[in-house]
Amino acid sequence: MLPRADLVVVGASEVLTCAESSATGSERIAGGSVAMADGRILAVGPRDEIGAVVDLAGAMVMDAAAGVVAPGFIDAHTHLVFGGSRAREYAARLTRSREEVVASGIPTGIMATVSMTRSEGVDALLDAAVERVGAMLAHGTTTVESKSGYGLDTPSELKLLEVNRLLDEAQPVDLVSTFMGAHDFPPELSREQYVDHVIDEMIPCVADAGLARFCDVFCDDGYYTVDQSRRILEAGIAAGLAPKIHADQYSDLGGADLAAELAMVSADHLNFTPIEGLQRMAEAGVTAVLMPLIDFAVQHPRPIRARDWVEAGLSIAIGTDLCPGGYAVSMPLAIQFACRWNGLSPDEALHAATAGSARACGLDDRGTLKAGALADLQVWDVPTLEDMVYRIGHNPVRTVIKRGKVVV
Amino acid sequence: MLPRADLVVVGASEVLTCAESSATGSERIAGGSVAMADGRILAVGPRDEIGAVVDLAGAMVMDAAAGVVAPGFIDAHTHLVFGGSRAREYAARLTRSREEVVASGIPTGIMATVSMTRSEGVDALLDAAVERVGAMLAHGTTTVESKSGYGLDTPSELKLLEVNRLLDEAQPVDLVSTFMGAHDFPPELSREQYVDHVIDEMIPCVADAGLARFCDVFCDDGYYTVDQSRRILEAGIAAGLAPKIHADQYSDLGGADLAAELAMVSADHLNFTPIEGLQRMAEAGVTAVLMPLIDFAVQHPRPIRARDWVEAGLSIAIGTDLCPGGYAVSMPLAIQFACRWNGLSPDEALHAATAGSARACGLDDRGTLKAGALADLQVWDVPTLEDMVYRIGHNPVRTVIKRGKVVV
Repeated sequence: MLPRADLVVVGASEVLTCAESSATGSERIAGGSVAMADGRILAVGPRDEIGAVVDLAGAMVMDAAAGVVAPGFIDAHTHLVFGGSRAREYAARLTRSREEVVASGIPTGIMATVSMTRSEGVDALLDAAVERVGAMLAHGTTTVESKSGYGLDTPSELKLLEVNRLLDEAQPVDLVSTFMGAHDFPPELSREQYVDHVIDEMIPCVADAGLARFCDVFCDDGYYTVDQSRRILEAGIAAGLAPKIHADQYSDLGGADLAAELAMVSADHLNFTPIEGLQRMAEAGVTAVLMPLIDFAVQHPRPIRARDWVEAGLSIAIGTDLCPGGYAVSMPLAIQFACRWNGLSPDEALHAATAGSARACGLDDRGTLKAGALADLQVWDVPTLEDMVYRIGHNPVRTVIKRGKVVV
Repeated sequence: MLPRADLVVVGASEVLTCAESSATGSERIAGGSVAMADGRILAVGPRDEIGAVVDLAGAMVMDAAAGVVAPGFIDAHTHLVFGGSRAREYAARLTRSREEVVASGIPTGIMATVSMTRSEGVDALLDAAVERVGAMLAHGTTTVESKSGYGLDTPSELKLLEVNRLLDEAQPVDLVSTFMGAHDFPPELSREQYVDHVIDEMIPCVADAGLARFCDVFCDDGYYTVDQSRRILEAGIAAGLAPKIHADQYSDLGGADLAAELAMVSADHLNFTPIEGLQRMAEAGVTAVLMPLIDFAVQHPRPIRARDWVEAGLSIAIGTDLCPGGYAVSMPLAIQFACRWNGLSPDEALHAATAGSARACGLDDRGTLKAGALADLQVWDVPTLEDMVYRIGHNPVRTVIKRGKVVV
């Protein structure tokens, strides 16, 4: 007996499987179909071939109406749980220096958000996060990584990770939770005291509560040194939290080398990483996370040359880096930037935003359309992948299917 | 007896009038209301004050639900009527040089679109244009300038202007029609022959048919010289077509000075215009049109420093420059770029996208919310103008009212 589908998407102009096996990273099946049951994909291919391996009788049929079918996006890097708003700071910084804005009395930077986040309760934080993730879903995101890091004390960091847990339950998008107590330093302790506190108290608490999968550190000039980062991430590994790192965003401290040394799951930003660092990361199997929208939001003086990443042989992921300092929810826009600004091809960018980001999140059950994978997919209102990249600012998402259910 | 309103918008967090009189160019009325009748605005102000000057009995009431109310956007510069698609060229150019793409056999540039446009009929051109303008309307645009220029022979140019006329009738957004036969040179004639042809045949035909309000020329290295531009635009003026110019996008030929000399309605692009040229334009009352999205689409090596424009005292407008080489319909995204990339303040950018663009289109009946103006306005889903600028890629438009009717 053939397995029985409960939903089949037909009539696509092309199905972009993002299968790992394809040379371009983005296998295209013209006119392909996707059959699914119980939240998993049963088969992907031309409609005739699917009919030979799957029982389609009784399945709901969705017409993709000559649109593109692609895996749901996986947003590999966000700081989406936070209190307050920094819209005023962002607007002020458009025409004034940081010093002028600080002097004007507007609270600025990570510490402004820490203050506004500590004072908010779980419900308010959750409501704001649900709205943000809803906007992401409307742009095709079906899995999102979410970091703590605006608490910087144990109860506040646990509160943020608890919001991650509730958020995962509250709406269809899957959350991947990352502990990032080492996002900045709180005013209450010396830097060394806080590093000890992260290692001795926070990491055990987080691990015991089962509230995070990853541990992340902001390794950069003015933030965590390479040695501090190594100590924290090794403590995380010992407690079962896999390592990630914010590396080389504003300086080359050697964060990429640390990522290679610890064979981290991902290293993110990398604006100042030398070619050799990229190569060492590639050899160690570290996925590099590209986030053009934050570089745009801060007008980064060194935008990523993503062809260097491709040439180094890196596995690449894409994230919005939604955060109070750069408010962007759209993975299509991140892809459009990754192509036009950073030099990825459309196939490379789509693969990064799906299969690559799955890898950066340690997930092997999604990010490609293939039998057995989660039925996380989307239908676009454009005829080709190239049209999606071409239409700057266009949200192509017409339908989103999450775990086999139509949610947009 | 007080004038009687048929529609009143209430409950805004702030009404941004974009009144010319305000110092910042963007007067804000907290909690303001807008009353209208028969497609025109009757009054703008706090609800109590409006009630004293307008009879609100029987008017439909729309709740802005604590969103922002602003004038409809006026997109001051587009090439939205064209045949075919250049998505493939755009995608190919992401990772390859122009020469490589040409060698691969993909048709490129303006002449590729001219060929695809000449071969399409009015109906097909109109259908594609209606879809594009519909997407613009969904992003808050209520008036759009539209240029010919992909015909480059008399029947084809007239065909494009006829599409403008039909487009104006086919949907709610008002079209401002510009003749731009001098967009490139056709292969059939020598350059001097074609300039004579534009002057002796095209301009009289266009003017006789009443199909355009403006005449525009692409004055740049490799396109029209300053002398050719002057001849064409003076012929346009004599025939009743007011002058506009694509100036200094890729070189400084002196296009800005010509704009000042002829006191043109607008000069557009201006990437290479020296400060003195900006100052002369300001003195002559020429509006400068800022189009960040095309600079992004072509990765222009010299993005606009808009603070130079402000300091020169220029009136500034904003356009998407929607065209086959840079496909963008969103005025909110253009504003977000104008602020973050080009350095305008939110107030300056909003004023440019409304009152400034009205000026660039020679329209004095719209672009500000004031008694007597067209009732072209929009309601956003954000609490302040700053939030709209802050949320990169977000389309804030919840409702659009065009000539007093709710159309989105």
